Amino acid sequence: MMSVQLTLDKLLERAVDLFPDRELVTKLPDGSTHRYTYADAYERICQLAHALDELGLEQGARVGVVATNHYRHFELYFGPACTGRSIHMCNMRLPDHHFVHTVDDAEDEVLFVDPAFVEKVAANADEFESVEQYVVLGSEAEIPETDLEPVTDYESLLSGHPTEYEWPDIDEDTEYGMCHTSGTTGLPKGVPYTHRAMYLHSVMGGHVDANAIGERDTVLPVVPMFHANGWGIPYGATFVGAKQVFPSVHTDPESIAHLIDEEEVTFSAAVPTIWLEMAEYLDENPEVDISNIDRLTVGGSAPPESLIRRYDEEYDAPILQGWGMTETSPLGTLSTLRKEVTELPTDEQYEYRAMAGFPVPGMQVRVIGDDGEEVPRDGETMGGLEVRSPWVTDHYHNRPEENEHAFTEDGYLRTGDVAVRNELGYVDVVDRDKDMIKSGGEWISSVQLENELMAHERVAEATVVAVEHDRWQERPLAIVVPTGTGELSEDDLESHLAETFPDWWLPDAYEFIEEIPKTSTGKFDKKRLRDRFDIVLEAEKEGDAET
Amino acid sequence: MMSVQLTLDKLLERAVDLFPDRELVTKLPDGSTHRYTYADAYERICQLAHALDELGLEQGARVGVVATNHYRHFELYFGPACTGRSIHMCNMRLPDHHFVHTVDDAEDEVLFVDPAFVEKVAANADEFESVEQYVVLGSEAEIPETDLEPVTDYESLLSGHPTEYEWPDIDEDTEYGMCHTSGTTGLPKGVPYTHRAMYLHSVMGGHVDANAIGERDTVLPVVPMFHANGWGIPYGATFVGAKQVFPSVHTDPESIAHLIDEEEVTFSAAVPTIWLEMAEYLDENPEVDISNIDRLTVGGSAPPESLIRRYDEEYDAPILQGWGMTETSPLGTLSTLRKEVTELPTDEQYEYRAMAGFPVPGMQVRVIGDDGEEVPRDGETMGGLEVRSPWVTDHYHNRPEENEHAFTEDGYLRTGDVAVRNELGYVDVVDRDKDMIKSGGEWISSVQLENELMAHERVAEATVVAVEHDRWQERPLAIVVPTGTGELSEDDLESHLAETFPDWWLPDAYEFIEEIPKTSTGKFDKKRLRDRFDIVLEAEKEGDAET
Ligand SMILES: Nc1ncnc2c1ncn2[C@@H]1O[C@H](COP(=O)(O)OP(=O)(O)OP(=O)(O)O)[C@@H](O)[C@H]1O
Ligand SMILES: Nc1ncnc2c1ncn2[C@@H]1O[C@H](COP(=O)(O)OP(=O)(O)OP(=O)(O)O)[C@@H](O)[C@H]1O
Ligand SMILES: [Mg+2]
Ligand SMILES: [Mg+2]
Repeated sequence: MMSVQLTLDKLLERAVDLFPDRELVTKLPDGSTHRYTYADAYERICQLAHALDELGLEQGARVGVVATNHYRHFELYFGPACTGRSIHMCNMRLPDHHFVHTVDDAEDEVLFVDPAFVEKVAANADEFESVEQYVVLGSEAEIPETDLEPVTDYESLLSGHPTEYEWPDIDEDTEYGMCHTSGTTGLPKGVPYTHRAMYLHSVMGGHVDANAIGERDTVLPVVPMFHANGWGIPYGATFVGAKQVFPSVHTDPESIAHLIDEEEVTFSAAVPTIWLEMAEYLDENPEVDISNIDRLTVGGSAPPESLIRRYDEEYDAPILQGWGMTETSPLGTLSTLRKEVTELPTDEQYEYRAMAGFPVPGMQVRVIGDDGEEVPRDGETMGGLEVRSPWVTDHYHNRPEENEHAFTEDGYLRTGDVAVRNELGYVDVVDRDKDMIKSGGEWISSVQLENELMAHERVAEATVVAVEHDRWQERPLAIVVPTGTGELSEDDLESHLAETFPDWWLPDAYEFIEEIPKTSTGKFDKKRLRDRFDIVLEAEKEGDAET
Repeated sequence: MMSVQLTLDKLLERAVDLFPDRELVTKLPDGSTHRYTYADAYERICQLAHALDELGLEQGARVGVVATNHYRHFELYFGPACTGRSIHMCNMRLPDHHFVHTVDDAEDEVLFVDPAFVEKVAANADEFESVEQYVVLGSEAEIPETDLEPVTDYESLLSGHPTEYEWPDIDEDTEYGMCHTSGTTGLPKGVPYTHRAMYLHSVMGGHVDANAIGERDTVLPVVPMFHANGWGIPYGATFVGAKQVFPSVHTDPESIAHLIDEEEVTFSAAVPTIWLEMAEYLDENPEVDISNIDRLTVGGSAPPESLIRRYDEEYDAPILQGWGMTETSPLGTLSTLRKEVTELPTDEQYEYRAMAGFPVPGMQVRVIGDDGEEVPRDGETMGGLEVRSPWVTDHYHNRPEENEHAFTEDGYLRTGDVAVRNELGYVDVVDRDKDMIKSGGEWISSVQLENELMAHERVAEATVVAVEHDRWQERPLAIVVPTGTGELSEDDLESHLAETFPDWWLPDAYEFIEEIPKTSTGKFDKKRLRDRFDIVLEAEKEGDAET
């Protein structure tokens, strides 16, 4: 058959050929709205391609982008890739030393930077070893006062270049981009992606048994475009020619809710905290209607079942859970309901929707026990989650040690997540192996405890971490943010948890705080919490756990 | 990223891993029903794999299958392919000399033959140059009296072999199968398929903007499994773990209607004549309910718009038109309605649904005029349809001459179909270039005329072919099968056509016959009709055309 390479120019060419008039909408930082079409975007991407040539970037050179989600970032999703270069999607929310590490690790030769991040970049520029030039993502007037140099602005860079470009023939196994992991458990790790992987990931995003993103959808990626390729949404949506909406800095609940309402968004995606916060906003502003939504994808960490119910019952906006990793492009499993599940009573269906989900087509998944065999599919036996797919990485960039341990001999990635599996093949992620609480030789899942805490009506957010214990090794500490409406005591929470969990799972201590610190990608920052609550519990302090 | 090869064992492994209990149902020739599951099928496919090894078939050897659609044929869809051999799906409805040509052309080393076709195969066995053994697709008791040798039966061949098999690593560019074209325009041409092509085709079959075959579907391929991979349905359905229903010999309208009703079929596919005939049956048997159907795919030739309306209005079973070729695996375009079309009035939507359709994701399509440029997308200007995709062939087997002409320099296949394209990117196939009628230097589409004839309520079937004309070169001859209810005259037809077409398009002559001869894949056999009505029209016989 024809050796048509699975490269990203194909996605773009399809959109501009068949859907030239479909819109790409950006809510700009100043609150105004920028609208243009795939045809417009295409011309500018061609100009960008010429500009990259003029900058003297070689094949394979990495182009760093430090930007929120907006149309210029979208252009950068294609310009470098379609010319044989690589986009490095930088996570500027990382702490400085991690941020610098990622830029150096990727050896970015140029950085495209939002005006708002110029200061942060400039403050670290001394430490960049490879960066030779800077481009500010705006017009000349938008370049802030800065020491960075050489610096130019994006609009001047593009202007004057031809609006057509002959894409080179690129082998599908060429790197098109790189992301770093979120740094939740340590130094972020670089994952280089190939054209083939993202092409296949984009196709699968449109599969009816996966995200089913089609041309009739309007997508709104709230998830940052630096977080695992914006979960592949900008590429998948381009492939089908769907309308796209970018929020730039406006990722607060109010702005997102209004964008969904006004732009008739049918598909959006973010980490759970975003949807948790938006629920508060929607309750206070019942005139805002988000019921256009068909799928509100949530991933990055597990959403509580209570959140899924709330979005169904109160806002008519179904939540769809996804599990994935930077290493998996990221689509791995989705809590779509297979036929057998749609025939179950509603309550049981919610149990399924609260799971990490079912492997999407093209993704091989297994849960391996200590004996090296697949664990029984009983929904109870825990094991290490391992995955294999054309869009899963086979190595980390510059990390020989991790590379030695992260892959099995038969080519699966060890995800570092602990999971169970049930008869119907659904995976539920119990916890990260690093976050599991080892109490007297038995494992307690921090995720299950925190999700049950968040189901309490007077809890806004909650997390659970291990603290040292002189007798049981580790015991759970619950850290809770009350909603503030009504009283909330340790006893309330303990009796609430006791309805679901055995005595020995119940936290030994509760801390009430105002806000749970989040990581750069909006996950609960357990590293920071463990440092902050670095206490040692003693046996006599315990209640039930000891008996 | 991981170099996971896109091979067909992945489809099978997914089905058996996640949907082991889903059913594969066959209505056997004797009228009884065979049911088993993917888990059962998998064990037998492993046994078949061992048996193929034992037969001494080398890597790359072609295994011919002469069979209707049933579970053993399904097993053969995987056994040879997953062990690095190739299944040659033989079209036994071809005239003998064509049938023999296809077997010799493919150099089949073994033929797996339905009991019902043993006689036909035996009658031609002398001419097979490569076939060394025969396997009858049944149990020992089902082998008919025959001279074929050596011959064994399928069940004995399988029995005793282990029910597990370690699939070899196969490069995705390896041939997994071969089909021959239908022979509508001449000697059938062999098309070799790779694993990669059919894997991608299967994925795309599940895309929400294509056939959207998902795990909740129950599929019934009426289209023979030798016709362009059964339009890829058995592979696509396996990938998602959908229930499959095979009719074997029972492809008459009554049987199909009952199977749809009883097995709750949601997706079926066939050439237009099947659905035309089934409509007659459904009208006479209103108690049969086929409204489970979500998509009744029709392809191979253009269905009349009147048929599409009838299925909506009377049976609540939406028809979806597809265009494709043996050369394209076959999925090319589908008359899915893009967002802009769903907003049009119903009548205009039907116009879209009567078109060949919109390019499925992954398929590049263009219509090229005489000047070598894309024709304007005005819905009127005709040109040659050209396509490019990872699942389009880049050569015919053993056909150097065709290979020289069928492909453009930049790697597109010249389909031989004449098409127009409209603003929204939809393709409508006007005719095959060989069937277009050239009247006085202007082109008349035989397909458009015949579809309008079939919209007449007293016409059961109709076709139009060119006949020689002493002044205008060629003129249309209409060949019509009346329904038999009420009178039908030439004048009725002429005035009916005159409502739609200009005078010079109207046929010069009408022939009324009892049945239109069909090709091996159920298309109108215009070659045969042209031979039968090999007449020369004279100028003085004409009416309006001359004035
Ligand atoms: N639906 C989900 N349920 C539970 N956990 C999830 C879910 N989706 C993602 N995760 C968690 O997120 C991880 C992947 O996140 P990401 O790639 O953003 O980096 P990280 O693992 O948070 O950071 P790092 O690898 O640098 O420590 C998964 O391994 C898993 O632990
Ligand atoms: N929806 C459709 N509308 C009109 N024509 C169609 C449609 N689908 C398929 N066809 C016709 O069928 C052809 C492909 O058919 P197939 O591969 O079965 O062999 P064939 O072209 O009939 O035979 P041969 O190539 O041997 O002459 C297309 O080229 C086109 O002419
Ligand atoms: Mg990680
Ligand atoms: Mg043909």
